Amino acid sequence: MNVADAEQLDAAAPLAFTRERFRLPEGVVYLDGNSLGALPAVASAALANTAEQQWGEDLIASWNKHGWIDWPTRLAAKLAPIVGAKSNELLIADSTSICLFKLLAAAVGARPGRKTILTQRRNFPTDLYVAQGLAEMLGLTLKAVEPDGILAAIDADTAVVTVTHVDYRSAAFFDMRGINEAARAAGALVVWDLSHSAGAIELDLNGSGAELAIGCGYKYLNGGPGAPAFLYAARHLQDGLINPLQGWMGHAEPFAFVDDYRPADGMLKFLTGTPSILALAALEAGLATFDGIAMRDIVAKSRSLSQLFIAEVEARCGGEVRLASPRDPAMRGSHVVFAHPDGYAVMQALISRGVVGDFRAPDLMRFGFAPLYNSHAEIVRAAEILADILATREWDQPRFKARARVT
Amino acid sequence: MNVADAEQLDAAAPLAFTRERFRLPEGVVYLDGNSLGALPAVASAALANTAEQQWGEDLIASWNKHGWIDWPTRLAAKLAPIVGAKSNELLIADSTSICLFKLLAAAVGARPGRKTILTQRRNFPTDLYVAQGLAEMLGLTLKAVEPDGILAAIDADTAVVTVTHVDYRSAAFFDMRGINEAARAAGALVVWDLSHSAGAIELDLNGSGAELAIGCGYKYLNGGPGAPAFLYAARHLQDGLINPLQGWMGHAEPFAFVDDYRPADGMLKFLTGTPSILALAALEAGLATFDGIAMRDIVAKSRSLSQLFIAEVEARCGGEVRLASPRDPAMRGSHVVFAHPDGYAVMQALISRGVVGDFRAPDLMRFGFAPLYNSHAEIVRAAEILADILATREWDQPRFKARARVT
Repeated sequence: MNVADAEQLDAAAPLAFTRERFRLPEGVVYLDGNSLGALPAVASAALANTAEQQWGEDLIASWNKHGWIDWPTRLAAKLAPIVGAKSNELLIADSTSICLFKLLAAAVGARPGRKTILTQRRNFPTDLYVAQGLAEMLGLTLKAVEPDGILAAIDADTAVVTVTHVDYRSAAFFDMRGINEAARAAGALVVWDLSHSAGAIELDLNGSGAELAIGCGYKYLNGGPGAPAFLYAARHLQDGLINPLQGWMGHAEPFAFVDDYRPADGMLKFLTGTPSILALAALEAGLATFDGIAMRDIVAKSRSLSQLFIAEVEARCGGEVRLASPRDPAMRGSHVVFAHPDGYAVMQALISRGVVGDFRAPDLMRFGFAPLYNSHAEIVRAAEILADILATREWDQPRFKARARVT
Repeated sequence: MNVADAEQLDAAAPLAFTRERFRLPEGVVYLDGNSLGALPAVASAALANTAEQQWGEDLIASWNKHGWIDWPTRLAAKLAPIVGAKSNELLIADSTSICLFKLLAAAVGARPGRKTILTQRRNFPTDLYVAQGLAEMLGLTLKAVEPDGILAAIDADTAVVTVTHVDYRSAAFFDMRGINEAARAAGALVVWDLSHSAGAIELDLNGSGAELAIGCGYKYLNGGPGAPAFLYAARHLQDGLINPLQGWMGHAEPFAFVDDYRPADGMLKFLTGTPSILALAALEAGLATFDGIAMRDIVAKSRSLSQLFIAEVEARCGGEVRLASPRDPAMRGSHVVFAHPDGYAVMQALISRGVVGDFRAPDLMRFGFAPLYNSHAEIVRAAEILADILATREWDQPRFKARARVT
């Protein structure tokens, strides 16, 4: 396919109009929305209003006047249709890692006597680190198995299983329903990390029997660098959960200023300290990029983009790169990974030509497709440039091989 | 004193020029900077640049190009002179409550065998809640005593003492050096909450033998609503501390993406998840309001403002209000509390007349003095209006008695 044909495809695509909801730099093909979502068009005005009008003019009164106190739940309601859960099952708070600690600890507390946290090897690192920290603190066992061994490893000592739904490298995903059912049958809970799922694929947390989950606000949800994260707990489970990171914002009466902690009802108990209102303002702009969009259209466009990318790369680059993601789009999230022995340098060369993906050791070039703003024409252009870089060995230069601090 | 005399005092004051570093609403006397610091003049431009140029244009490359990865330590260096510590003893992270959890857990871990966390009754609520949550999780005892009983209560079972340096109600403060020495003599650690101290009084963490502390970014540091907080750990202690909330940002090699956690050296290990870059941009604007200012000038102006307020209120309001803060300014932080049986309604009447303080149960009207932007003329005006409201019983209206959600 050439770029002109791809542009025709874009013109007919149901989500062509949503690119206007973002500000993207001219001449850049941004395929890293799985790492940091693009800037929503309204984000800067939202930040200016929050800073100048609310903070600057109304000052402390904004907690009431602009309802700051309700923002963590108000934004949670906007997330609900994106992840297939009810508003009162979600909360915006802290970082993904802190949210995971809260729910893992709550899950362990809800399964007294069970001493094992089960996870996958090569899970996203912070998930492993959080679980290691909690296990050391509480004298639990953290058992990490190969991804395909999760089901068989759930046993009577398993308090909680924690896995990342869509793998950050390959984009392969776990069978959410199957793991939920196996865990429930064994009396264990599951905490899903939805960081690479939320906003990218059609999630149905309620329908698939998910009971606990957390996820990231700054990837496909477009909430800005280091955006607040989210927690999900199924309604029927909430009353039995204890948030170990107790703070005044999670108190039943935060402004009674009493000495004894009494958790708020529902999800609010999972708040701890005062949330960053500015960060929430940006996340709200990110969530608004999904306004009126059906997740099935997101998935359809994601598959259309990623399938086109695989086809174009394989047709243009021959055997120089190897697909390291599932070939079946129904088995993948919204990014695709190609392996190349000099993947790091090839990716730097791509970036210098305006095609922005990222690299994951040892040899993986990762390309994310954000259905709200990426186009088929961009996909063809990216494949063209990749083929050119490989054909000319343009990547084989010291400047592309020097490692940056953040990769 | 009348307003004209106070204006003369302002003209001669060494910090008169720093009011221009803020954007304050016309006609408002803002005496609640101890709850939410005012908007720095450069904050909105900093947010716009961070959003539009960095996030919007440079996208994921900003982690390297704009050094986002270093912001938590870069901002910590700006905080160092404000709190009297070395740059490598500070870190910006999370919320105050989360930071307190980290340091309390680290302190308990550094004193194995000791089972008591000692604190003060009527400490700031979130401090108590955090300590309660940790104590329940680890099977420790949380012992809360009257503030003047802290020294006597430190014993061989005390792992850690945690107190708020400046009381959020009365502004009375603890003798930092004395408690540090008593704790050290007993083999215990101390975690100071500096939320009402940092930016308001002259702190000398190093000189007073403080080993652990946390504090708030959104009060006198002017970092914006829900700004990131800070942690302090004396250099000699750092290697022995374990952060229980382990995350990838605190890993020795965050971008190696390895399965096993290995803490970064120094304060960096206290990072957990990805920090909000937008929230950090605002906090940086807040810290910049202290550029080139000696903390001794801050203290001198704080005392000048608060002594004038006490004198004017007592002269104008007679026995209708009762000073509920220490009378000696050397024994107080930068706010002053007056008690009145209908304090809530009186404060609402004040706010409706443009004098913004806040209320703390049962009867305390709290007035904060931010030396960087409050003036003597404002103080006289506030006292005048308070006297008028009391003399006319203007506060005695239903609209001033109806409680808001956030007080």
